[in-house]
Amino acid sequence: MVEKTRILEIIRSRRSIREFLGDPVEDSMIEDILEAGRWAPSGLNNQPWRFVVVREREIAGSLAGCTRYSTIVRSAPLLIAVFLDRDVMYDHTKDVQACGAAIQNMLLAAHGMGLGAVWLGEILNQKDEVGDILNAPGSLELMAVVAIGYPAAGSSRSGGRREISEITSKERFGNPWK
Amino acid sequence: MVEKTRILEIIRSRRSIREFLGDPVEDSMIEDILEAGRWAPSGLNNQPWRFVVVREREIAGSLAGCTRYSTIVRSAPLLIAVFLDRDVMYDHTKDVQACGAAIQNMLLAAHGMGLGAVWLGEILNQKDEVGDILNAPGSLELMAVVAIGYPAAGSSRSGGRREISEITSKERFGNPWK
Repeated sequence: MVEKTRILEIIRSRRSIREFLGDPVEDSMIEDILEAGRWAPSGLNNQPWRFVVVREREIAGSLAGCTRYSTIVRSAPLLIAVFLDRDVMYDHTKDVQACGAAIQNMLLAAHGMGLGAVWLGEILNQKDEVGDILNAPGSLELMAVVAIGYPAAGSSRSGGRREISEITSKERFGNPWK
Repeated sequence: MVEKTRILEIIRSRRSIREFLGDPVEDSMIEDILEAGRWAPSGLNNQPWRFVVVREREIAGSLAGCTRYSTIVRSAPLLIAVFLDRDVMYDHTKDVQACGAAIQNMLLAAHGMGLGAVWLGEILNQKDEVGDILNAPGSLELMAVVAIGYPAAGSSRSGGRREISEITSKERFGNPWK
């Protein structure tokens, strides 16, 4: 029951962090985040995710030019670009879900370590440019960029959630959960 | 650092569980699993996931008829069907990722509580039939069914993962991570 409390606590207390301190993220932490990502489940265990770890300022600056959230991208000492490898794809919807699961694992791991992170999706509007900057082969499709770093004070803004009863039905739609 | 160890441990030790004991899953545990799901991140915080908790044997039996994994569906005392609500959708790819994140949160929460679970995707081949059985409005798209219960002994088979170095590049593709 200790673990139960712990995992729910981590899941519930995680928030998008959009401002970071300048401190770099240690290699061992990056490894742990990647480790979390790779243990996500995927259909047929095809593990369609591919990661690019970006810390070089010049590359980060180029990526910042691909999104309206350039301040976040520039402020984060660590970016992990997540791609779907279409060469191992078996079902686009399920593989996209699997990438979402991998990203969530990485966000939870980062949060559990005291890091802050934000899942950037708007950058997909310029996915071709991002692919060019990162030399992505044509078979790779950008899924997201995760910006990570030590959270700046006051960088967490609370985003609420719908109540369970609003999003859950019992046995069938039309029959509310409690 | 305790939390860090804990979350990684939970992420790494989770496996798909496909055989369950007959014991029912307590309501409080179901609530915790739903709670984990609803705290997933989503683009614009649109929370596109919708859940149907299925425990009635007759409905579970009907769902079992929609997949080649009918034994798993029949054996699980608890099924959670996850749908994407297209009425709140803003980007199909990002919303499908968000549902993947919500499913992963639920799998981690279940595992953290000592339950076993498996993410069933093959049932999407008969998503219309599942929608009919669950009275799903036309705006709802089936994402997955998660089968949950107390794990039967020996029900966990290990699925390996690619090494981090196989799936990760440093700064750019073509430049391996270590």
